[in-house]
Amino acid sequence: MINFSYCTPTRIVFGKGVVEKLPEVLNPFGKRVLMTYGGGSIKRNGLYDKVKNLLNDFEVFELPGIEPNPKYTQSVVPGVQMCKEHHIDVILAVGGGSVLDCSKAIAAGACYDGEPWDLITYQVKTQAALPIVDIMTLAATGSEYDAASVISRSETNDKVGYIDPHLYPAVSLLDPEYTFTIPPKHTRAGIADAMNHVMEQFFAEPYTALNDGMCIAALKSLMLNAPKVLADPNDYEARAEVFYTCTLACNGIFCNGNGHSGWPMHGIEHALSAYYDITHGEGLAIITPRWMKQILNEKTVGRFVTYGTMLFGIDANLAPMEIAELAIRKTYDFFKELGIPMTLREVGIDDQRLGEMAHHIAVNEGLEDAWAPLNEEDILEILKASL
Amino acid sequence: MINFSYCTPTRIVFGKGVVEKLPEVLNPFGKRVLMTYGGGSIKRNGLYDKVKNLLNDFEVFELPGIEPNPKYTQSVVPGVQMCKEHHIDVILAVGGGSVLDCSKAIAAGACYDGEPWDLITYQVKTQAALPIVDIMTLAATGSEYDAASVISRSETNDKVGYIDPHLYPAVSLLDPEYTFTIPPKHTRAGIADAMNHVMEQFFAEPYTALNDGMCIAALKSLMLNAPKVLADPNDYEARAEVFYTCTLACNGIFCNGNGHSGWPMHGIEHALSAYYDITHGEGLAIITPRWMKQILNEKTVGRFVTYGTMLFGIDANLAPMEIAELAIRKTYDFFKELGIPMTLREVGIDDQRLGEMAHHIAVNEGLEDAWAPLNEEDILEILKASL
Repeated sequence: MINFSYCTPTRIVFGKGVVEKLPEVLNPFGKRVLMTYGGGSIKRNGLYDKVKNLLNDFEVFELPGIEPNPKYTQSVVPGVQMCKEHHIDVILAVGGGSVLDCSKAIAAGACYDGEPWDLITYQVKTQAALPIVDIMTLAATGSEYDAASVISRSETNDKVGYIDPHLYPAVSLLDPEYTFTIPPKHTRAGIADAMNHVMEQFFAEPYTALNDGMCIAALKSLMLNAPKVLADPNDYEARAEVFYTCTLACNGIFCNGNGHSGWPMHGIEHALSAYYDITHGEGLAIITPRWMKQILNEKTVGRFVTYGTMLFGIDANLAPMEIAELAIRKTYDFFKELGIPMTLREVGIDDQRLGEMAHHIAVNEGLEDAWAPLNEEDILEILKASL
Repeated sequence: MINFSYCTPTRIVFGKGVVEKLPEVLNPFGKRVLMTYGGGSIKRNGLYDKVKNLLNDFEVFELPGIEPNPKYTQSVVPGVQMCKEHHIDVILAVGGGSVLDCSKAIAAGACYDGEPWDLITYQVKTQAALPIVDIMTLAATGSEYDAASVISRSETNDKVGYIDPHLYPAVSLLDPEYTFTIPPKHTRAGIADAMNHVMEQFFAEPYTALNDGMCIAALKSLMLNAPKVLADPNDYEARAEVFYTCTLACNGIFCNGNGHSGWPMHGIEHALSAYYDITHGEGLAIITPRWMKQILNEKTVGRFVTYGTMLFGIDANLAPMEIAELAIRKTYDFFKELGIPMTLREVGIDDQRLGEMAHHIAVNEGLEDAWAPLNEEDILEILKASL
């Protein structure tokens, strides 16, 4: 095991009807609230009205229209401006991971005098952030229980991971019923995203039996419940388990003491969605089996054996390479059968800019230092295999 | 899943050499430190001197001699008095679960004007507690990552669980190397304690695939590493994994959304160690298979099937009752082979007070409302079977 320091100060309030607790949850932070949300799904499903009614005693300012793969210039900068202008006490993020990620960057930017981009790119250390309360409506990123935020800057094709302890939400209100109306495309993508988060933690060395078991438990939970929520979007038990598993999946609790993998699949996917604005979880599902194939070798095969035997129950007496190849195939098949588009062409990416993206990734993501090192050529291979 | 609210504000700092961070960890809380510890093992292994050297810049008051199954009158009351008299800023607990449990009760008592027993027994709601930093030297109770404290009052044979969010340690410094010198008896008992914590969470309804998988991961981790640490007490990797698994085992992360079991084995064991001052983990190991046998029936057998097939790999095609009985036998065998005394007589308890204890437990522990309800007669059966 490697040394680690771990603390998650966020309070998770989980279950049916927990949104009702919003006033008592917000109250200790102050009365001036910036409410952030996305494209309007919360208006269609009634959550917007519910929240507004609950906040009668608060002064609420609104930042609507936060986009998927949230944008620095279009959303972070105006949000920071609003916080400063209206002396906001607390940010209330209502929506999915993009809304919350954007709100985290706003929360930090609001406590800083310079350009928020300085913080996001670690040119200046984050010293403070406004408190954030969120109501998550999508089971996917786990942003509700982590200190990470991913921000895109379309002008430069940058998609940057910004991680800082000040970015933990103070309270996350998680009612699985608000995930009933997620369209199937995003239900699938959310599950793929969370599964990938677990894999990014699992495929590393050193590792422990405890972490391996917890990772496999999370993957099994998602794989067991994914078909259930697609078959019956109102299946509370299945939605609840998917939601809570997603919440834990990006929080680090599955890899304390493990070596760091370098999060290679995220490194690659971030370029795809920065260049083409595709759905993050779909991009990850497409990359996953191709990354696995690319890095499979004598040095890495042991991790695939553990993965394949524990997750899929593959016969441990088979040759290690055979187990690994079977496990990769089963991973691909699972995503495919779930209904995720499993080629780049299906999500609108052709071969025109693969080289440019591979170069961008090689320069910016540091994947030569990953657990399974990738140079520009390897990355290009993965992209080509994903076409 | 049932609704839940979950937050663990403790920072875990884990690994080789982390004790060196003590001054920077303590500093934000203040300069006046109450250092609590037990019977002197920290003097023998050099930790006492190391801590004192690190705290040159602090004003340190000492409360030594905290006993196993820490006592209200002998340790909590004097500790509270010291905190008030010396205007203590922060408590530094150095030792095992008993030292930390006692320190938690002291920390709360120090912020209360009346009798600390009022808080411990919930007659008065805890409103505040001094911050606690701990250096744990025993892998066992998980007190370093939970809000619980167990305090005994020998005058009345009470052993009371006191749980309050104010009791979370602020920072837990966990260096597995300080567990190298734990005597085998306590290494075994600590592992049995942590395994029992997991079982108390697992044997409940409703449950989730995620929690089941995490519980089994923890049990497997402990069962895999237990023989290793007994064979080679200086095996860092095995000690580290045991330690961290114990840390998570009592924290609730394995049962969020599950029904509450009522922690029946702890309810029973608390009477054993209150009446006879036995080692908690040994008492739990003795009770475990007998409790399992007592509650096994058509209603509970499903949980045993999951337990037996996932943990021991028992053939899922066998009859459920057969799987359950095999699983119980294997549980007993594991503890026995580990070298734990598996009868009450071996730990000095005869049949003289079984009825009295069964009555005490039935009156005080509320086990009629447990997931698998136990009346006084059931409890007596378990105690008799444990002789």
